[in-house]
Amino acid sequence: MRLAELSTRSGVSTATIKYYLREGLLPPGRRVTATQAEYDEKHLQRLRLVRALIQVGRVPIAAARQVLTALEDESLDHNSRLGTAVWALPHGPESPAGAGADGDDADTAAARRTVDALLERVDWEYAQGYGADAPAYRMLVTAVGTLSRLGYPCSVEDLAPYARAGRQLAVADLDLLERYDSPDEQLEAAVALTVLYEPVLLALRRIAQAEESNRRFGRGAGE
Amino acid sequence: MRLAELSTRSGVSTATIKYYLREGLLPPGRRVTATQAEYDEKHLQRLRLVRALIQVGRVPIAAARQVLTALEDESLDHNSRLGTAVWALPHGPESPAGAGADGDDADTAAARRTVDALLERVDWEYAQGYGADAPAYRMLVTAVGTLSRLGYPCSVEDLAPYARAGRQLAVADLDLLERYDSPDEQLEAAVALTVLYEPVLLALRRIAQAEESNRRFGRGAGE
Repeated sequence: MRLAELSTRSGVSTATIKYYLREGLLPPGRRVTATQAEYDEKHLQRLRLVRALIQVGRVPIAAARQVLTALEDESLDHNSRLGTAVWALPHGPESPAGAGADGDDADTAAARRTVDALLERVDWEYAQGYGADAPAYRMLVTAVGTLSRLGYPCSVEDLAPYARAGRQLAVADLDLLERYDSPDEQLEAAVALTVLYEPVLLALRRIAQAEESNRRFGRGAGE
Repeated sequence: MRLAELSTRSGVSTATIKYYLREGLLPPGRRVTATQAEYDEKHLQRLRLVRALIQVGRVPIAAARQVLTALEDESLDHNSRLGTAVWALPHGPESPAGAGADGDDADTAAARRTVDALLERVDWEYAQGYGADAPAYRMLVTAVGTLSRLGYPCSVEDLAPYARAGRQLAVADLDLLERYDSPDEQLEAAVALTVLYEPVLLALRRIAQAEESNRRFGRGAGE
């Protein structure tokens, strides 16, 4: 299909598609004349992922490019590509990857001990060897350190139910992924769904809070 | 205590405290001379909440003021204050309260039907009467509509495990709250913990994804 049709079918303006092409977020089309290129279903699919990352996930262009590069890195096996792509996603404003935002103070050291004890408690063997450089690990240490610094220290016992809920979410996430047949689609869906389900989850937690608060304290909560 | 001590004990600069005072996020101190005011433990506690909202939750000043106003609204009972305060928190970039971001298109209408069916499926009676104006409900409809628009439609069956995890999170949230004795502390903690546990939760989900992916697909994922 031509650029105009790609735009109509994706709902993304031609100007934005050209911008994504220039930024390397979308592979070039197959050139048919000096000024025309031909695009295919793969472009449409990729555009879907780019929009999920940029419009919903607010992922910066450079990080989005890293994610997409990892997806296409043929030197990696399927699982490594998946891990590298999710790793390249931003992990919250509190812990930009590599920015050293977590510091080296006493709160952070205590938070790291709490997180390590938590991973042991819930028996996440893989995560225990995950490495302190993993962005999700750093994000968790930063979040636990912040809670403590702001006067809401949390123990391993406090965190364990959140970890158990996290594990259930991951099972649901992977179940969704396994529906996709082709490895490429599965990789793209992994990244898109990680980002797109975050607001779903946060909204459900707040609705459930109102539900649970109403159950415990009677009517009025959440109204 | 004087302003300087409030600054030292809270770790917030005097300039920032003065800014919060001007913006009405912190109640004025008790004036002792024309140029000096006296602050107490309640100021310290409030400052903790303001930092949680603004520095971690990235809550805009105006929204933070609304949250704090709800907490102090003596015309409301405890539960209503709690609900109103959490209601005033921002609900993600996708659905600024009152901005009508969710539109009225077919995707949104379908998303609303899915969300309503979900609330019925998981038997959240309170939430079923929660009202389509509730920010968390709007946030969920927007998120489900976005998934569909981007080519990842989700059914009630897909969402049900996320809702069940959300309910467990809410139970953990309310258990944490019930530790606080005074109603004022409980209200402040409710708002602070809603915001501060969001990054904890998102980080744990990502770590659990790596754990679960490794379990299903062997080593390599997440490395």
